[in-house]
Amino acid sequence: MTELLNSVLIANRGEIALRIIRACKELGIKSILAYSEGDRDSLPVKLADKAVCIGPANAAKSYNSPELILSAAMAFGAEAIHPGYGFLSEKADFVKMVEEEGITFVGPAAEHIALMGDKIQAKKIAKKAGVPTVPGSDGVVSEPEEALQIAKETGFPLLIKAAAGGGGRGMRVVNSEETLEKDLKEIMSEAQTAFNDPSVYIERYLTDIRHIEIQVLADGENVVALGERDCTSQRRNQKLIEEAPSPAIDEELRAGLEEAAINLCKEVGYRNAGTIEFVFDNIERKYYFIEMNTRIQVEHPVTEMVTGVDLIQEQLRIASGQKLRHTQEDVQINGHAIECRINAEDPTQNFAPRPGKIEHFRQPGGFGVRMDTHIEAGYTIPPFYDSMVGKLIVWAETRDEAIARMLRAIDEMDVGDVVTTAPFQATLLDSEQFRSGEFNTGYVAKMLEAGIEL
Amino acid sequence: MTELLNSVLIANRGEIALRIIRACKELGIKSILAYSEGDRDSLPVKLADKAVCIGPANAAKSYNSPELILSAAMAFGAEAIHPGYGFLSEKADFVKMVEEEGITFVGPAAEHIALMGDKIQAKKIAKKAGVPTVPGSDGVVSEPEEALQIAKETGFPLLIKAAAGGGGRGMRVVNSEETLEKDLKEIMSEAQTAFNDPSVYIERYLTDIRHIEIQVLADGENVVALGERDCTSQRRNQKLIEEAPSPAIDEELRAGLEEAAINLCKEVGYRNAGTIEFVFDNIERKYYFIEMNTRIQVEHPVTEMVTGVDLIQEQLRIASGQKLRHTQEDVQINGHAIECRINAEDPTQNFAPRPGKIEHFRQPGGFGVRMDTHIEAGYTIPPFYDSMVGKLIVWAETRDEAIARMLRAIDEMDVGDVVTTAPFQATLLDSEQFRSGEFNTGYVAKMLEAGIEL
Repeated sequence: MTELLNSVLIANRGEIALRIIRACKELGIKSILAYSEGDRDSLPVKLADKAVCIGPANAAKSYNSPELILSAAMAFGAEAIHPGYGFLSEKADFVKMVEEEGITFVGPAAEHIALMGDKIQAKKIAKKAGVPTVPGSDGVVSEPEEALQIAKETGFPLLIKAAAGGGGRGMRVVNSEETLEKDLKEIMSEAQTAFNDPSVYIERYLTDIRHIEIQVLADGENVVALGERDCTSQRRNQKLIEEAPSPAIDEELRAGLEEAAINLCKEVGYRNAGTIEFVFDNIERKYYFIEMNTRIQVEHPVTEMVTGVDLIQEQLRIASGQKLRHTQEDVQINGHAIECRINAEDPTQNFAPRPGKIEHFRQPGGFGVRMDTHIEAGYTIPPFYDSMVGKLIVWAETRDEAIARMLRAIDEMDVGDVVTTAPFQATLLDSEQFRSGEFNTGYVAKMLEAGIEL
Repeated sequence: MTELLNSVLIANRGEIALRIIRACKELGIKSILAYSEGDRDSLPVKLADKAVCIGPANAAKSYNSPELILSAAMAFGAEAIHPGYGFLSEKADFVKMVEEEGITFVGPAAEHIALMGDKIQAKKIAKKAGVPTVPGSDGVVSEPEEALQIAKETGFPLLIKAAAGGGGRGMRVVNSEETLEKDLKEIMSEAQTAFNDPSVYIERYLTDIRHIEIQVLADGENVVALGERDCTSQRRNQKLIEEAPSPAIDEELRAGLEEAAINLCKEVGYRNAGTIEFVFDNIERKYYFIEMNTRIQVEHPVTEMVTGVDLIQEQLRIASGQKLRHTQEDVQINGHAIECRINAEDPTQNFAPRPGKIEHFRQPGGFGVRMDTHIEAGYTIPPFYDSMVGKLIVWAETRDEAIARMLRAIDEMDVGDVVTTAPFQATLLDSEQFRSGEFNTGYVAKMLEAGIEL
């Protein structure tokens, strides 16, 4: 078997840096952590085999600097770079630089990152691979007649989206044929003004949806799917609670989703870990590809808990040149896992960040409880980065038992006076709606509007 | 379905008290902790729904007092008592008192505790149930002719054991026929002097054995076996490392062991959790029943990790009157789990206890790592009880990976200046012998004699 990498530079911080350090240690790979001055006193710095300060807290001058990361890897002889998530993890240009220096990137090839980063291209590849996509225009629409023709397929309401938009900007819902022409002209004009590009496209507007994603591992030849994660519990597109399996997905749907994900990966010869995101229409019970994430994701632990597969270790094995260790038949989904992203934010103050010092920390424990966190007593949450202080993950035989276990674990957790989202997540988990398993991406907003008790 | 108990009094301390509190919380059962003054500042006291001081640190006047425990349960209206392990957990007289007061004992019936507590009776029941026992005399031997006859079945070496002995006292190994008569007379005379009872019995002396035990759950009617635990890594009969499954047990042996355990339980109509202990002869690859433990055991988490079944929750469900939730087919053994009992003892000073204050505590974490412990920063290990400060448990897909994960977790754990057995356990785990899976109950002593590095 191909030997494992000797050393990996970790170009990240917080819990994911620690997660990668742990995987490296268990595989006997030397972990070299590149950290910023803002993270000098953090646990990953203490636990890495080697830790190197690469710049100031400002991420542009540390974690987000391709040159600094690359030169640190070269200076310390790292055979590979693990980018974690965020920061440089999906920057194709950076990955290209890494590849050109003969350093292994723990992730997909630069070309695949670039390809999947272009949403129109990604959708084309999906169609080519026979993966269902949201009904709509094949590309740019500019004429009212064309829009009308597409509307006949998609039905109303439909969505006009600026090709250059994103994150909720440059979108309009059209409810009937009457306003279609006017709406089309207006959004094109707005897109021209906002993005200097009038291109728009049209999609069916789905009103009752879940966010479902499939985890894959691929070695460039073989692909295995590791079931779905349900990330429907969101607030303003921020995931709050993730779970596996999804209460909405039965075996037949899972088989279809997994096949779609595998076909997409095979279409491009994908390598390493990846996530294929789908929207799931609760009404029609159909799924549509939306995008592929070419990195490890924050919520990867729920997949680990139900499959037993250590995804970070597998990333490192694949990056070392090894073939997949698991066949599709090896992958069994056991029990139920739930993750809460614990953010130092105040749910009663519109989720305003609340960095500060953690005077006391009690990490919840016991059977089926895992907390991936870089915090410890005495740690000061720096104000420079996102506000996530850890991920609380539970596993149990059934979904009901996993909810009970998470509520117990949240109750047990103690972060001193630091305000977190945990009580809010406990309220969500304990709600009739969450317990029923029947909800869509809008339910958290509705509960907040209705004014829930914290 | 029968309703769960409303409340449970926990008659124990340390990690197992916390373990039971967690299970109660997850099931919505009120936990009432009976604690001694020596444990006033411990985590279980903080986390129980209610905590009641029942006496001084001296266990005879608190945890070991049937009257105090029972009156606390009655005073606070507890519907049930969970004894944990040790203390009153296998005292049939206590359980009888509990039963007579109409309080539910979370464990087997008093009569089954009494029955299995009598080793000669237990062996008889095992034989009746068709469970293999160590070849030897059926009962007391007093005549040399009889001994000679038995020796023909058992072969040499054989063991003469005083019926009233135990814990290594009142035993003699006989290597040949020549000394048999003399040895028999001497040990009978010694037994008379030491125990005021000359009764002895004879067993085959097994020289290369493993300690294998089967976990069962039973509801008085149905019994399921949850695979084996291997507790061969011992020092002076103290278990140091436990694992599941055993590297020595294949599917055929497991099926035989499980069937034997189930038959034994069915023979007596056993109820609640239990463990059937066997010696496994490495040379002949045969197993023999030695005793049944009628309580939850310290090492129960390794079974939980490979089966997913929460044994304490199941104990509480059974005690509530519910039937077993799992069939034998439901129970699948996944991956590999290892547990290290972390004791505050100094391995370099003949394992002398080292109680003291834990100034700083880092609980190891991450995928597949569980630490069941009542310690936290600032906690002082009291000198009154056993020296176990926690159990570090890991799970991984394979045994090799579980070893790597345990070594990583031990490395990550930080208990400040308190001396523990963890470095010694790391040395064992990392040894060629442990890694090979081929060892017997004597290997730890041999490694210690050879002078291992810590």
